[in-house]
Amino acid sequence: MGEVLKKEAYGLAVKDESGVLSPFRFSRRETGEKDVRFKVLFCGICHTDLSMAKNEWGFTTYPLVPGHEIVGVVTEVGAKVTKFKAGDKVGVGYMVSSCRSCETCTDDQENYCPNMILTSGAKYYDGTITNGGYSDHMVCEEDYIIRIPENLPLDATAPLLCAGTTVYSPMKYHGLDKPGIHIGVVGLGGLGHVAVKLAKAMGTKVTVISTSDRKRDEAISRLGADLFLVSRDPEQMKDAVGTMDGIIDTVSAMHPLLPLLDLLKYKGKLIMVGAPYKPLELPVLPLIFGKKMVVGSMVGGIKETQEMIDLAAKHNITADIELISADYVNTAMDRLEKADVRYRFVIDVANTLKPTP
Amino acid sequence: MGEVLKKEAYGLAVKDESGVLSPFRFSRRETGEKDVRFKVLFCGICHTDLSMAKNEWGFTTYPLVPGHEIVGVVTEVGAKVTKFKAGDKVGVGYMVSSCRSCETCTDDQENYCPNMILTSGAKYYDGTITNGGYSDHMVCEEDYIIRIPENLPLDATAPLLCAGTTVYSPMKYHGLDKPGIHIGVVGLGGLGHVAVKLAKAMGTKVTVISTSDRKRDEAISRLGADLFLVSRDPEQMKDAVGTMDGIIDTVSAMHPLLPLLDLLKYKGKLIMVGAPYKPLELPVLPLIFGKKMVVGSMVGGIKETQEMIDLAAKHNITADIELISADYVNTAMDRLEKADVRYRFVIDVANTLKPTP
Repeated sequence: MGEVLKKEAYGLAVKDESGVLSPFRFSRRETGEKDVRFKVLFCGICHTDLSMAKNEWGFTTYPLVPGHEIVGVVTEVGAKVTKFKAGDKVGVGYMVSSCRSCETCTDDQENYCPNMILTSGAKYYDGTITNGGYSDHMVCEEDYIIRIPENLPLDATAPLLCAGTTVYSPMKYHGLDKPGIHIGVVGLGGLGHVAVKLAKAMGTKVTVISTSDRKRDEAISRLGADLFLVSRDPEQMKDAVGTMDGIIDTVSAMHPLLPLLDLLKYKGKLIMVGAPYKPLELPVLPLIFGKKMVVGSMVGGIKETQEMIDLAAKHNITADIELISADYVNTAMDRLEKADVRYRFVIDVANTLKPTP
Repeated sequence: MGEVLKKEAYGLAVKDESGVLSPFRFSRRETGEKDVRFKVLFCGICHTDLSMAKNEWGFTTYPLVPGHEIVGVVTEVGAKVTKFKAGDKVGVGYMVSSCRSCETCTDDQENYCPNMILTSGAKYYDGTITNGGYSDHMVCEEDYIIRIPENLPLDATAPLLCAGTTVYSPMKYHGLDKPGIHIGVVGLGGLGHVAVKLAKAMGTKVTVISTSDRKRDEAISRLGADLFLVSRDPEQMKDAVGTMDGIIDTVSAMHPLLPLLDLLKYKGKLIMVGAPYKPLELPVLPLIFGKKMVVGSMVGGIKETQEMIDLAAKHNITADIELISADYVNTAMDRLEKADVRYRFVIDVANTLKPTP
C-alpha cells in the first residue's frame, strides 16, 4: 500500500505479560475515503482484554491497546462515507474489518471470516497492529460501525457491543428468540446478565442457573428472570429436567455439562459462549437420546449487532456497569480476575484519560 | 386391558448376564385390529443386541429375545389394517409403538417419544415384555412397519432398518443430504459402511476417516467413497482441515473429538451416532471459533426409515452382510465383540431357527 498519513493518538497499553496497563502514545491512520473517525467516550472492559493482556492464549503482541466495547462521537468522515456524519453516536465492537467476500461475510457473519481483523492486537491491511478503545480516538471503516440510538445512555451501552451481541447472535440464529421459548442462562456475569435482559426483551421465559442461591433476588427482581435454579440442589435440578429449549452457557471455568444437557428438552441446544481452556467432559448418550446439540458461538455479525442495539434501545436495555476512571484500570483488571464486578467495568475515557506530557 | 389372546412362538433368548443365547419358547399376542403378523425371514445382529444381552446399560430384563433389524413376510393382518396384506415383504426396526400424540410423535420422530416401545426388552401396553426378531414370527402395529420394495434382497436389507436409518436420519435432518455437501464418515463398521453408501446415493462427496490405511481400497473401490483419510497421519489431517460440512461419527470407543472438529467447515456439524460409555473430551474453543456443533442422533422415525428404504431400493443399496445360521449366533456375538465382522451378521431365521421339542 502507499503512504498512510497518520494522526497522533494516546491511550493505555500493556507492554508485557505482567498485563499492567500504562500510558502509551501511538498514531492512527488518516481518515480514509470510507473511514469514520470518532472520539472515544466510553470503553468496556471485557474478560478477553484481561486474557489478551496476559497473553493467556499465546498470540498477544505487545504493546497492546485493549478495548473492543467502544462508544464515541464522530468527528470526521471520509469522502465516500454515506451512513455516518460528524456528531453521530457510534460504537465499535471486536472487529474493524473483514474480507467482505467469503462465505461468512456474505452470510452477514463477518465475525467468522478467516480474515476478520480484531479491533485490538491484530494486523491491519497497512501492516500496523490495531489499537483498541482504551484510547482517545478511533478510526474504522464505516461498514464495521454500529449506530447508537439516541435514547441509550452511552456508558452502559458500551458493553453491549461485545457482551450483548455474543448472547444475542446465537439466540437469534438458533431460533431461541420467540415467546414460548424457555431459555436457561448459566453464569450471571457480564454476558449472563445481558443475556437475561435481551432474552426477556425477545419475549422468552428465562431461568438463571447458578451454583448458589446468592443471586436469586438479583436475577429475578432486578434483571427480570422468571425462575432461578441452584445447580447444586439435586431436587431443584430434577424438577427442571427436560424443560428448556436452549441454554446460554457463559461460564469459562471448568464445569460439568451433563446437568445442563439434562435440563434441555428434545432437540434442545446448549450454546457455549464462555471458553474454558481445557476440554470439558461431554457425555454422549444424553445428546443421542434427546437429539440434543452443543454449539459454539463467537460474538456476532455487524447486522446482528445493529439489530441487538436497536432491540436494546426499544426496550431501554443496557448493561449494569461500574464506571471507572482511566487511572483505576489496573485495579479493575485485578478485580475482574476475581470476578469482583457487577457486571461490567466501563472506562470513562473522554473525561479521565489524559495524555502524558 | 381385557384378555389378550396369544400364539405360541419360539426363538433365541439370553437368560442372564453371560449374554449366551439359547432356545426359548414364548407366546405373542393374537393379531389385533391394527396389527400385522409376519413370519421372520432374516434378522440382523446390531451391536446394541450385544450390549443389551450383557446388561451393559443396566436395564436389561431376562429372558431377552434380541433383534430389531427384522425382515419378513406378512401372514395375517387385523380387520382395520389398511397398508399391508398377507404376502407383503415388511420390516420392523428398533420400535414397535409410541404414544402417537406427543411433540416427537407429531414431528415424525417417534424414536424420541418418551413412551416409545422398543422392539426387544421393553414393556408393552398389555404388560408383557417385547420379544425381538431372533424368533420365528412377529406381531406389530401396522404404523410401525416398513414396506420393503420388491427389488431389495431381504437378507442384506435387514440391517438398514436400524443401521441405515441411524445414519440417514441425521444427514437428512441437518441438511447434509445434497450434492455439493462434503461428509466425513468416522468408523467403517456396520453403521459407517451404510453411511458411505447412503451419502453417495444422496449425491454428496464422502470421505472415510479411519485410524489406519488398511480399509482404503475397501472404502473407495467397493463402497464408493471419494476420499480416505488416515486420522493418525498429521499431514493428511492438516490438508483436510476445514473441508467438511458434516461428519457422521459412528465410533463407540473412546476417541478424540478435536481432530474431527478441525475437519469441519464454518457451521460444520459433528453428528454422534456411536455411544461411548464414558464422556469424551470436548474442546470448546474450536466450537466457538467456527460456530460448529456436536449433535446426537438416535435411529430415526418411521417416515424417515421408509424414505431411507425407498432411497436404498432406488440405488440398489443394501448392507454388506455375513449370513449365518441360528446355531452360529453365540459365535457371531463373540466375533462382534471383537469387531470381527464385515459388516453385519444377519441370521437366516426362516431356514435355520428350529423349535426345540
